[in-house]
Amino acid sequence: MDAHHDEASAGAGARASWTVGLDVGGTKVLGVLLDDRGVVRRQVRLPTVPGGPGVVDAARTAVLELTGWAGVDVRGLRGVGVGVPGVVDPVGGAVEHAVNLGIATRVPLAALLGDALGGVPVLLENDLNAAVLGAAHVSPEPVRDLAFLALGTGVAAGLLLDGTLRRGAARSAGEIGHVTLVPGGRACECGQRGCLERYASGSAIAASWPGAGRPASVALFEAADAGDPRAVAVRDEVAWAVASAVRLLVLTCDVERIVIGGGVSELGAPLLDAVTGSLIREAATSPFLASMKLEDRVRLAPRGVPVGAVGAALVGRGEA
Amino acid sequence: MDAHHDEASAGAGARASWTVGLDVGGTKVLGVLLDDRGVVRRQVRLPTVPGGPGVVDAARTAVLELTGWAGVDVRGLRGVGVGVPGVVDPVGGAVEHAVNLGIATRVPLAALLGDALGGVPVLLENDLNAAVLGAAHVSPEPVRDLAFLALGTGVAAGLLLDGTLRRGAARSAGEIGHVTLVPGGRACECGQRGCLERYASGSAIAASWPGAGRPASVALFEAADAGDPRAVAVRDEVAWAVASAVRLLVLTCDVERIVIGGGVSELGAPLLDAVTGSLIREAATSPFLASMKLEDRVRLAPRGVPVGAVGAALVGRGEA
Repeated sequence: MDAHHDEASAGAGARASWTVGLDVGGTKVLGVLLDDRGVVRRQVRLPTVPGGPGVVDAARTAVLELTGWAGVDVRGLRGVGVGVPGVVDPVGGAVEHAVNLGIATRVPLAALLGDALGGVPVLLENDLNAAVLGAAHVSPEPVRDLAFLALGTGVAAGLLLDGTLRRGAARSAGEIGHVTLVPGGRACECGQRGCLERYASGSAIAASWPGAGRPASVALFEAADAGDPRAVAVRDEVAWAVASAVRLLVLTCDVERIVIGGGVSELGAPLLDAVTGSLIREAATSPFLASMKLEDRVRLAPRGVPVGAVGAALVGRGEA
Repeated sequence: MDAHHDEASAGAGARASWTVGLDVGGTKVLGVLLDDRGVVRRQVRLPTVPGGPGVVDAARTAVLELTGWAGVDVRGLRGVGVGVPGVVDPVGGAVEHAVNLGIATRVPLAALLGDALGGVPVLLENDLNAAVLGAAHVSPEPVRDLAFLALGTGVAAGLLLDGTLRRGAARSAGEIGHVTLVPGGRACECGQRGCLERYASGSAIAASWPGAGRPASVALFEAADAGDPRAVAVRDEVAWAVASAVRLLVLTCDVERIVIGGGVSELGAPLLDAVTGSLIREAATSPFLASMKLEDRVRLAPRGVPVGAVGAALVGRGEA
């Protein structure tokens, strides 16, 4: 294997430019070891332990597993990048309002993890900002202007505009899940009604079409394929909602590319077909929309590639 | 007057760093003469003549009136900046799809106007991009992260993100007037239904509340103030639609400031009150929205200041 070959040939000096990237989510920590050429050498996956100390401990364990595998001292790393949900202060290395991680008030995660790792430089970034960097990095076509549209429990986007992360004035750019899609529509946990994420997220799909032990989105698309008219209606509504998110991102920011990620994106080609189909149908009556070629701008995040962790590793080497 | 004092004291050398900015709209050309300190010395207003040659001629006349007033040779200008609606190629100095100007296919406006002015450097920019630069320039508080939300015949925005114009991958960022506000709602000229601009624009107001010779928005707000329940309902819907545009811009781009301009903004404080009132009402049930402090981010464009022409003059001195 390539990794083993390099393991044998690369000296400690070469490995000094390797980085670790961690994507810390509500249920799991995904980690990657990135070499100096930007290639993923190793991945790791651990359960998340909620709360500041639990997150630091899980992150430390992930880093040590990756460096232990490669046989390098953790202090030999160029840096560690960490993507976390919530409002992140990348300069101060702190996170707050990360409900999924059990973190409410400000936690100086970068300093805490750096100390736990014996002084390795740790950089923090919002998880979707890390994901959009990762999505650009692993894209088969070079792209530096894109949105990473995450369809998970909620819906939100990371924005890389002309090569620069758009974090926003209050570090909350990309919160498109709470744009009103249907005035007076379904109640959202945020307190509004009709939010986009009540129609396009994994949890919205599960509420409309319980999966009975399997992922709801898979069960829904299978039932729709089998011709169940109620499933067809729900699937088409989901596709319309995701297509609406694409229109929203392009009509506001005019991003060149939209990469769809998150749990729902694991549906693969059937999801992409449904979304591009909806985009094409809506543009059929509108030369204006048609001229934007929205369907050509959409891609799925590559399967099995932890783009959030890869992006975090890029953050760890100062590329954000 | 300050201008006359400077006219007497400033030599031709100083004036070599002056610029002219033109805002070319569907009905009028607004021009300003900007001195080296960024102060507007003179304004001019001419009717627009549709079509490429007509636009060039009106623009040339505006520049000559401004330089003639100041007693400077036009070739002594540092540059001329022109803001035009449509899809603008700032590098090539060309515009296309400017329906309001009677320009469909690509017109190399910068080169044509430069030739007509004896070789003065001319730079072209989309009118809303120019306007957002102008709005930042004339803001009493320093700001470099804002949207200029134009409520005119249509609705669109110019975006200045962290000091950089966001033009977009297809140079059509800020086309938020065609985001769906009401699924299945009012028919839009673009071919879609329920577009934001069918609820928040001057023409939408005129369709709901004809002004009988006066601006529709003024007549509407007066009738609402007088207690006409139908006018109150229409006014509240307009305020909600404009507030929705503000939410959309912040939830997507998280801009620090939104400056409302365009013809509808001439309503002044009553419009601002109605929009901030709507923002506060919608946030009352949502701690998430409330935390974004949307109502604090909104301002009106300053009255009587041609921000589009001022921004175009900044473009003319290479500040875009």
